[in-house]
Amino acid sequence: MNSETDPQSTPLPGSPVPPLEGDPHAPKDLEAFKHAFRRHAAGVAIVTSLNEDGTPVGFTATSLASLSAVPPLATFNMARSASAWPAIVENDRVIIHMLGVRNRAVAQKMSGPAAERFDGDHWHVGPYGLPVLNDVTSWMVGRIVERVSVHNNAVVVVQIEEGGMGDDDEALLYHERRYHTPGSEV
Amino acid sequence: MNSETDPQSTPLPGSPVPPLEGDPHAPKDLEAFKHAFRRHAAGVAIVTSLNEDGTPVGFTATSLASLSAVPPLATFNMARSASAWPAIVENDRVIIHMLGVRNRAVAQKMSGPAAERFDGDHWHVGPYGLPVLNDVTSWMVGRIVERVSVHNNAVVVVQIEEGGMGDDDEALLYHERRYHTPGSEV
Repeated sequence: MNSETDPQSTPLPGSPVPPLEGDPHAPKDLEAFKHAFRRHAAGVAIVTSLNEDGTPVGFTATSLASLSAVPPLATFNMARSASAWPAIVENDRVIIHMLGVRNRAVAQKMSGPAAERFDGDHWHVGPYGLPVLNDVTSWMVGRIVERVSVHNNAVVVVQIEEGGMGDDDEALLYHERRYHTPGSEV
Repeated sequence: MNSETDPQSTPLPGSPVPPLEGDPHAPKDLEAFKHAFRRHAAGVAIVTSLNEDGTPVGFTATSLASLSAVPPLATFNMARSASAWPAIVENDRVIIHMLGVRNRAVAQKMSGPAAERFDGDHWHVGPYGLPVLNDVTSWMVGRIVERVSVHNNAVVVVQIEEGGMGDDDEALLYHERRYHTPGSEV
């Protein structure tokens, strides 16, 4: 996922599952990419922001990564065709949420149809009027410090300013097109 | 990890574990960042490249993320003080390796002392003379298309050109300062 960009995103009902292995028509660069990312697991986060007209926007992302601790910087990736992109351009702040297993339903909701992502009582208004999702394991206010466009996509760099914690839970993972918990230590 | 940047990196033997929770002296931005990333799980990858003098370099990273499938783009984050940074600046190509549980020892080695990371027979010379680690689940040749410096760190954007696959395995995860497998589906 990263519902907006990731080749692992769950196809919408009725759409064909793209071929991942052994497709004789796929170019070797795309094949290598898909093979590799199928074998990679990722934590699941949700990024939210606010349009100029006050409409909340957001998406489920598997691309969240730390960049540095001092200053506290993180990155996420998205398509510039994503429903949230105008807000990311216009608004200097986002909320980044870390998800536990109990947040699986909201992860699915925030990767579903954009118009329905804030239908319900699963969020409240937080700092800067930004939408904060309820009952996540942790959330952070990020100030956008870089938007790096690459083709039709963007890397967004944020500096963390503050945050809050919810009850602890097992972390939510995405791997092989499915949600998982972390398993045994190795 | 991301041995070179990540606040979750395993301390070297003898070094103190940094305080993560409830440190009265930590600023709120750093506290929020550390709290949140403690609750995030990440896949483990290894990035390698080659210095101008032919010395192989590399590091274990938890920041690898896909950016787009068409064209196939990925990102990883690192400190510009990292031992591999000069090669990332000078060399246009890297190898990105996806790791399985059987690669746990090499993940540790590639986050240990930089001078010892290529001591041993755990790698071979691959495309462009770049070091390819043996027996990983998948690897990709990446051509560096952007190096975005932010403070003393960098986001590196690569376009995937080709790759290879090894035997399948459970994906290697890093969470709460420990290596894990993915657990049950939720």
